[in-house]
Amino acid sequence: MRLRAVVAYDGTLYHGFQRQSLEREPTIQGELERALAKISGRSTTVLGSGRTDSGVHARGQVIAFEVEWRHSPDDLQRAINAVLASDIAVLDVSIADADFHPRYQARSREYRYTIYDSRSRHPLHRLYALHVADPLDADAMRAASRCLIGEHDFAAFGQPTAGDSTVRLMHRVEIGGERPWIEIDLEANGFLYRMVRSLVGTLIEVGRGRMPIERVAQILESRDRAQAPATAPAHGLCLMRVNY
Amino acid sequence: MRLRAVVAYDGTLYHGFQRQSLEREPTIQGELERALAKISGRSTTVLGSGRTDSGVHARGQVIAFEVEWRHSPDDLQRAINAVLASDIAVLDVSIADADFHPRYQARSREYRYTIYDSRSRHPLHRLYALHVADPLDADAMRAASRCLIGEHDFAAFGQPTAGDSTVRLMHRVEIGGERPWIEIDLEANGFLYRMVRSLVGTLIEVGRGRMPIERVAQILESRDRAQAPATAPAHGLCLMRVNY
Repeated sequence: MRLRAVVAYDGTLYHGFQRQSLEREPTIQGELERALAKISGRSTTVLGSGRTDSGVHARGQVIAFEVEWRHSPDDLQRAINAVLASDIAVLDVSIADADFHPRYQARSREYRYTIYDSRSRHPLHRLYALHVADPLDADAMRAASRCLIGEHDFAAFGQPTAGDSTVRLMHRVEIGGERPWIEIDLEANGFLYRMVRSLVGTLIEVGRGRMPIERVAQILESRDRAQAPATAPAHGLCLMRVNY
Repeated sequence: MRLRAVVAYDGTLYHGFQRQSLEREPTIQGELERALAKISGRSTTVLGSGRTDSGVHARGQVIAFEVEWRHSPDDLQRAINAVLASDIAVLDVSIADADFHPRYQARSREYRYTIYDSRSRHPLHRLYALHVADPLDADAMRAASRCLIGEHDFAAFGQPTAGDSTVRLMHRVEIGGERPWIEIDLEANGFLYRMVRSLVGTLIEVGRGRMPIERVAQILESRDRAQAPATAPAHGLCLMRVNY
């Protein structure tokens, strides 16, 4: 029986979603597979909607797996959560079509990058938001982000995780949040490796006034990875939702 | 020179605010005193507005200390934060009257207890909110909390931290938050040891429908510590602000 689940995790202690060949470091996929093996007594492969990097969080990662289970999906959810560590949880389990693939069938992915823009760092926000001490100009960041909407070759902002194409369709870049918070919401049909963090790192430079607004479009057009400034750190990033 | 500072901390890894005589376990006061000693080269005693228990967080703990410092309070703030671990931060430093005492001069303290009321636990909220899987009746909790307003002997809900009196003046108990969140805000001239957590543990029993609304007033009137049900865990509690 093929099941589909929505998974949330605190990525702080994990080396990303994807299991590593040598299993030296803990990964989300590795933990989920271990939990399912414990419950079902068989080794199971967990498919994800996409990798998240080391330290990146998720509220709505989507996974699929095959398991023999005679009880309800809700019972399976409870059983998995009872076995998982407290920094990973399955929020929902449902029965999927036999050919459901969370990665190939995803229409779009939504990410949020959270910035805590305040003179002093804050201990209660340190794990899930990037602290920026400089006051950022959110209007300038918003103006600079407009050129990203639509279909573009995003080669300047990341590498493909599979295949060669660096073209992606960006549906939405919204810069919101109430001060001292700045929330950058992005939705695209897919993202290149490090793309969100590279875009956010670039927008932060604009927000700081260190880069003119029009420079972002120039970097995009250059298709040159060396043109984008710093990549923003992983801990401010969260995979919010995958749409099918 | 006497200084006053507002301190925030993630209490997860600390054995409360108050330094322990043997210094075996890390405490907030111990960390602040260590930081000040490192900066000033002299040992300094940090006074707090009150103790917070092991695992309790703070957004607005107020402290006072004597230090020789020739630069601005802002420079001192930066210097302290550079030395402190990432789970403690000084949010504000100002020059205080020579006789300022953060505990004796406090008019009132404000605490917030945060509940994540949802079928499944959530890894990104596990450190700062209590997960309750049962759906809670916030209206019943609100009705039950009304009897707590005003001056009462709260002996049923805690022990005095100093002196003998168990009488406190409760200014405000508000039950708000947007689902799945329930935020319980309390303000009083002072709180007994474990009082907020004991009150919250009792209100949760009402919210679960396991205790009738009027039982809370009966427990209060009993002045008997054995009458109050479970004390809510520390990690949902945060000292929000101290008023002078």
